[in-house]
Amino acid sequence: MEQLYTKLQSYYDEMVEIRRHLHQYPELSFQEVQTPNYIAAYHEKLGNEVRTNVGGRGVVATLKGGKPGKTVALRADFDALPIQEENDVEYASKVPGVMHACGHDGHTATLLVLAKTLAEMKDELEGTIVFIHQHAEELAPGGAIAMIEDGCLDGVDVIYGTHLWTILPYGDVGYRTGPVMAAADSFKIKIQGKGGHGAQPHRTKDSVVVGAQLVGNLQQVVSRRTNPLDPAVLTVASFVAQNAFNVIADTAELIGTVRTFKEETRSLIENEMERIISGTCAAADVTYEFKYNRGYPAVVNHKEDTEFVAGLAPAVPGVANVYEIEPSMGGEDFGYYMQKVPGTFFFTGVQNPDWDVTYPHHHPKFDIDERGLLVAANVLGTAALSYLKKEAGKKVEAI
Amino acid sequence: MEQLYTKLQSYYDEMVEIRRHLHQYPELSFQEVQTPNYIAAYHEKLGNEVRTNVGGRGVVATLKGGKPGKTVALRADFDALPIQEENDVEYASKVPGVMHACGHDGHTATLLVLAKTLAEMKDELEGTIVFIHQHAEELAPGGAIAMIEDGCLDGVDVIYGTHLWTILPYGDVGYRTGPVMAAADSFKIKIQGKGGHGAQPHRTKDSVVVGAQLVGNLQQVVSRRTNPLDPAVLTVASFVAQNAFNVIADTAELIGTVRTFKEETRSLIENEMERIISGTCAAADVTYEFKYNRGYPAVVNHKEDTEFVAGLAPAVPGVANVYEIEPSMGGEDFGYYMQKVPGTFFFTGVQNPDWDVTYPHHHPKFDIDERGLLVAANVLGTAALSYLKKEAGKKVEAI
Amino acid sequence: MEQLYTKLQSYYDEMVEIRRHLHQYPELSFQEVQTPNYIAAYHEKLGNEVRTNVGGRGVVATLKGGKPGKTVALRADFDALPIQEENDVEYASKVPGVMHACGHDGHTATLLVLAKTLAEMKDELEGTIVFIHQHAEELAPGGAIAMIEDGCLDGVDVIYGTHLWTILPYGDVGYRTGPVMAAADSFKIKIQGKGGHGAQPHRTKDSVVVGAQLVGNLQQVVSRRTNPLDPAVLTVASFVAQNAFNVIADTAELIGTVRTFKEETRSLIENEMERIISGTCAAADVTYEFKYNRGYPAVVNHKEDTEFVAGLAPAVPGVANVYEIEPSMGGEDFGYYMQKVPGTFFFTGVQNPDWDVTYPHHHPKFDIDERGLLVAANVLGTAALSYLKKEAGKKVEAI
Amino acid sequence: MEQLYTKLQSYYDEMVEIRRHLHQYPELSFQEVQTPNYIAAYHEKLGNEVRTNVGGRGVVATLKGGKPGKTVALRADFDALPIQEENDVEYASKVPGVMHACGHDGHTATLLVLAKTLAEMKDELEGTIVFIHQHAEELAPGGAIAMIEDGCLDGVDVIYGTHLWTILPYGDVGYRTGPVMAAADSFKIKIQGKGGHGAQPHRTKDSVVVGAQLVGNLQQVVSRRTNPLDPAVLTVASFVAQNAFNVIADTAELIGTVRTFKEETRSLIENEMERIISGTCAAADVTYEFKYNRGYPAVVNHKEDTEFVAGLAPAVPGVANVYEIEPSMGGEDFGYYMQKVPGTFFFTGVQNPDWDVTYPHHHPKFDIDERGLLVAANVLGTAALSYLKKEAGKKVEAI
Repeated sequence: MEQLYTKLQSYYDEMVEIRRHLHQYPELSFQEVQTPNYIAAYHEKLGNEVRTNVGGRGVVATLKGGKPGKTVALRADFDALPIQEENDVEYASKVPGVMHACGHDGHTATLLVLAKTLAEMKDELEGTIVFIHQHAEELAPGGAIAMIEDGCLDGVDVIYGTHLWTILPYGDVGYRTGPVMAAADSFKIKIQGKGGHGAQPHRTKDSVVVGAQLVGNLQQVVSRRTNPLDPAVLTVASFVAQNAFNVIADTAELIGTVRTFKEETRSLIENEMERIISGTCAAADVTYEFKYNRGYPAVVNHKEDTEFVAGLAPAVPGVANVYEIEPSMGGEDFGYYMQKVPGTFFFTGVQNPDWDVTYPHHHPKFDIDERGLLVAANVLGTAALSYLKKEAGKKVEAI
Repeated sequence: MEQLYTKLQSYYDEMVEIRRHLHQYPELSFQEVQTPNYIAAYHEKLGNEVRTNVGGRGVVATLKGGKPGKTVALRADFDALPIQEENDVEYASKVPGVMHACGHDGHTATLLVLAKTLAEMKDELEGTIVFIHQHAEELAPGGAIAMIEDGCLDGVDVIYGTHLWTILPYGDVGYRTGPVMAAADSFKIKIQGKGGHGAQPHRTKDSVVVGAQLVGNLQQVVSRRTNPLDPAVLTVASFVAQNAFNVIADTAELIGTVRTFKEETRSLIENEMERIISGTCAAADVTYEFKYNRGYPAVVNHKEDTEFVAGLAPAVPGVANVYEIEPSMGGEDFGYYMQKVPGTFFFTGVQNPDWDVTYPHHHPKFDIDERGLLVAANVLGTAALSYLKKEAGKKVEAI
Repeated sequence: MEQLYTKLQSYYDEMVEIRRHLHQYPELSFQEVQTPNYIAAYHEKLGNEVRTNVGGRGVVATLKGGKPGKTVALRADFDALPIQEENDVEYASKVPGVMHACGHDGHTATLLVLAKTLAEMKDELEGTIVFIHQHAEELAPGGAIAMIEDGCLDGVDVIYGTHLWTILPYGDVGYRTGPVMAAADSFKIKIQGKGGHGAQPHRTKDSVVVGAQLVGNLQQVVSRRTNPLDPAVLTVASFVAQNAFNVIADTAELIGTVRTFKEETRSLIENEMERIISGTCAAADVTYEFKYNRGYPAVVNHKEDTEFVAGLAPAVPGVANVYEIEPSMGGEDFGYYMQKVPGTFFFTGVQNPDWDVTYPHHHPKFDIDERGLLVAANVLGTAALSYLKKEAGKKVEAI
Repeated sequence: MEQLYTKLQSYYDEMVEIRRHLHQYPELSFQEVQTPNYIAAYHEKLGNEVRTNVGGRGVVATLKGGKPGKTVALRADFDALPIQEENDVEYASKVPGVMHACGHDGHTATLLVLAKTLAEMKDELEGTIVFIHQHAEELAPGGAIAMIEDGCLDGVDVIYGTHLWTILPYGDVGYRTGPVMAAADSFKIKIQGKGGHGAQPHRTKDSVVVGAQLVGNLQQVVSRRTNPLDPAVLTVASFVAQNAFNVIADTAELIGTVRTFKEETRSLIENEMERIISGTCAAADVTYEFKYNRGYPAVVNHKEDTEFVAGLAPAVPGVANVYEIEPSMGGEDFGYYMQKVPGTFFFTGVQNPDWDVTYPHHHPKFDIDERGLLVAANVLGTAALSYLKKEAGKKVEAI
């Protein structure tokens, strides 16, 4: 691995440069054009086999090693968010209202420079590396599902991915077996009452009152109906029944999100919501529309792969601490890949309180300690090479 | 009328004596024995025609006047309440736990002495007076309905009644056209959930939570669904779901009362309750039993009769003020009589703050300013005689 | 009165003409220009003393009779509503989005032609008539209060007014002693929580949940805290906490209206709202702003004046039925006048199902049976003349 | 270990006999007399040092090995439950209304026979074994805390315990690092309103309505205020506000339980409950009493000890499967011991569907597959001996 680490270290400046370039030219989910072109051009220059427009706007590059072996996929996403950047840095976003506020610029820079390094080590490579550059991670239905349908996992034996994470300090790596990020669903409830004058409630069917009851009743899903040992969140995020002060609203519209880790909890919640909405509306003699939209599934890490990577990580240069973390209620479409092939998704610390780099993801002041890029590349590279070595029948030891 | 007033005045002591006798020997609704015997004996001594056991335990006495004419009914109720008297008076109840705490002893004394007086004026009487002594006013289904079925109103043209009322000062008479006392219904809701360990709510159907929601949802009946101009009350008076601290209740039982003045509001409330209970229980996947028991109907005074009596009252001896009063949300089975024949039910003041006679009806310290008995007899007598005179084609003037 | 009725009858066509003219050129509250000019010019032509810009845009005309006596005020309002007319009639509104949808055009036409008639009877008039043409009845704070401050009631002994009413059939007149139209208040509640990600409710203070609780808790004001015999309405008409599906709202804004007939109920409700909002927000650790805006007071008819007018009305030409009506939960600023001088506000039927003239007030298809204008003028004129006659010591009898 | 297993196997019948004896003579928590006498006598016969009345009714026996070394404590509880047994077996409880429905009879039999076996191996023993026989596990405040205060852990280096568990099949052993059983608290809320007649809610402060709101509002503690990743339960198990149908209740009393795994969540819930109760009662102008009683703390297994025992268990005779289990929301006072010394508490399967031995703990038909006693003894014995061996510097391997 020494060779890997030395090379990556030597390319650190390039990694930062790429990340800052992408940071200045962010592109929204499903609208990416320059970013995939940039990625494809980079891989082509390396001599990798490149497929573009995979599943829409994804890019898949393949590096065949000099020796036979298994196939490892490494994934980085590259889309940005509809947020106006508030950082005062020279590499700040040049696109108004669009920002890499989730670190995907860093993911991409990490993977490109790792690809360059591994390409240079091609001859000794005991198998194949597939670089999956995914578009549209931030917006349902996400890019992963279409890229998989378009074959990006064909022949792949295992997949690794990481998220640069401002919740963890620079130098730390977090892992977890099993569910690590939640299934993220959304819902919309439209209550159709009967409007009328505020002074004559008995001639109306008051949708504000029904909506309010629903918000209350839906609290019971988590407090009473799901297993307390299975984490779940049901949030009504928005309630709109807009009117003049003396006119009772015809309709109320509630939208929100549901987060779960288990399919059975997810289905239970959808069913209980339907039951509660139906009963509550019947009690008030109003009608309703209820749409429950399943978003990304939970990200469920495979035990063997997670322990494999977690076991290697402590010896990787730049890694200070490796530990099991709590799952996150956030969503990620990486889960789709692991429904098809084994793998793990881990978290690479990029928080740095000394530099005020502590803002949460999706915040207008989100930034990262860029040294984490090198850590991420080191760990991903170690994981990929060690996997191929192990599968080639050799002993793998943390150096 | 002078003769009437003079005679009644002269019998005032007897009136008080009778009231105090009855006060000492109160009998519960549907268990009256000595009281109807006492009443029947009194009327028999007067020479009135007497029927006992009318509709159960009622007594009806008839005084036929010397001249032909219409028939007026006067009604007094005679049952007592399951309350332990707390008054320290020599005529206090001698029956433990039973008390005339609503003035029915006074009603009876008033009517008996008025009967004696009118019997003495029999020859000039231009028609017939029927004295309806009713049992069981305090307990549904009440005595009135059975007495009516048993013929107590046969041949009756009009009916008058009064309630001695500690809300009004002695000397005052209150009247009101239309609804004056509310329909008084009761209900019982039993929620059948599924009990279980308090640490595992997801394996139960929590009847406490459903019961609590119901209490909240039922508030909307009055706040949203009845016409705000039609007074209505829906009270959940009792909520019982009793358990150990760590065992979720199987069942919750809610009981309460509904008060209304209009039949349409009453039916609307019963229907809306059914709708709300059904929907709320469906939302929680529990079953229920709902029993709505119609009690006495509203007491609805007839306009012509009310105005007739209210017009005469100011000139009656002992009457200081006559005015329209607000309706009462309390119940009375006098309403049944006026569903059959016209009439009016008015209120005779017996409050006296100087003597600390201010306790509300059904209070263990309830008492009356006994001078109100004479006022009540004067007004009822005036009403009866004036009605017969008017119907006989003569001019009636307040003296 | 014969003279009055004959004259009014002969001017009926002019009355209709004026009404239709005004109907075509409606002006919004507090923006009236041509209408007061038109009114002032009309009165000037009659020779009445005219004051313009009274309390803003009001017009007050005074007709001094040939004989000494009391002073009667008659009031008509003249503003229109921000509603797009949907009637297909030749006299439909020519102003886009503005419409006389409440009959104020008719009120004004009635009063002008009545003024003309009375001016012609000036010599026999035993006192003075003040014609109060009020602007801005439809929009708080209303024109009445400013006109009163500007002296429109100076020297006035009694005031009469009527509302053309599509709830009553043409030919009917409705009256009521005491409260007849409700006090109409508005409120605004802003809940300040703490927003955040929908997947992490524990890091937020969820304003949607607090708002929903408030809607529920506020139902208790009417169901539990006001006297069930005092009609009251509390409506939350609008609930806005708008957000993305996965972002919990920072703030929720609730607006609504309160209707009452008694000052004590009004104050009770304002206080109970404050208590409920304060407690509910404390329970959730959020802050709030609560603004309660008192609108028009209840219209409370004086007993003597109401009975006086109701007693005269049955004999007035064109009047088919006169009866007591239920109060209306709607608001009117006529109440301000009767806080200063006695008077009554009655309702003149203009409904006509045969001609499809049945739409409620403020409806885009609102129209009136114009024959009601003549009825209104007849009754108002009768009331005014009879009052002056009575006060002059003469006997007033319904003709 | 062969010696251990052979001896225990040979004493299996005695183990069953002891368990069945205790099963027939169950004693309630804090009322145990014969059971501790029986235990003490057994240990005395073995020659162990015995202390009785430890912390009340506990028994502590000490076996000093022939060689120096560390001290291991093994704990079994011995109290029974106020449940009427419904099993039709010859060894059924002979005490009406009292039953070993939680397996403590088996715990005690296991520990006694293990003590006998280890006593026979005394000479080779490289340290000391302390047998903690605890009274009153089923009833707060429990026996553990008093026994600890009375010195039962003095000199102890590590503690092991197990629960016979009908949730796991016979042959299985369940373990878990960290929180494995919940902190089990109870609470009582008394709402003091103002009673009155059901027809006059405005003269009361309705405690039923306030109680109902509280039940609803308390649902938010878990749905909104605790971290969704920290399991928590808040159950209102009982709601009592008992009254006649037409009398609004003065007071409502709510009792319930709270379950948590982390101290910070536990404190958060207590604080949020106080906030919610206080705000809700302020909104309704009623007063309250709130008592939150902390019960047993969570049972938190130490990582090293848990992994040590879990690592040895698969090789123990009779053990079919060893796996990590989900935590239980139930409570246990074993947690107190591990606040003082390291240790682990594991679960030994005694379920047997073939024999219909599947009833949950605390069920009147609860029973166990007695072969689990031998498994429990084998694992506890292995753990104790291996620990002493390891601490004596020897290599420990699963056989």
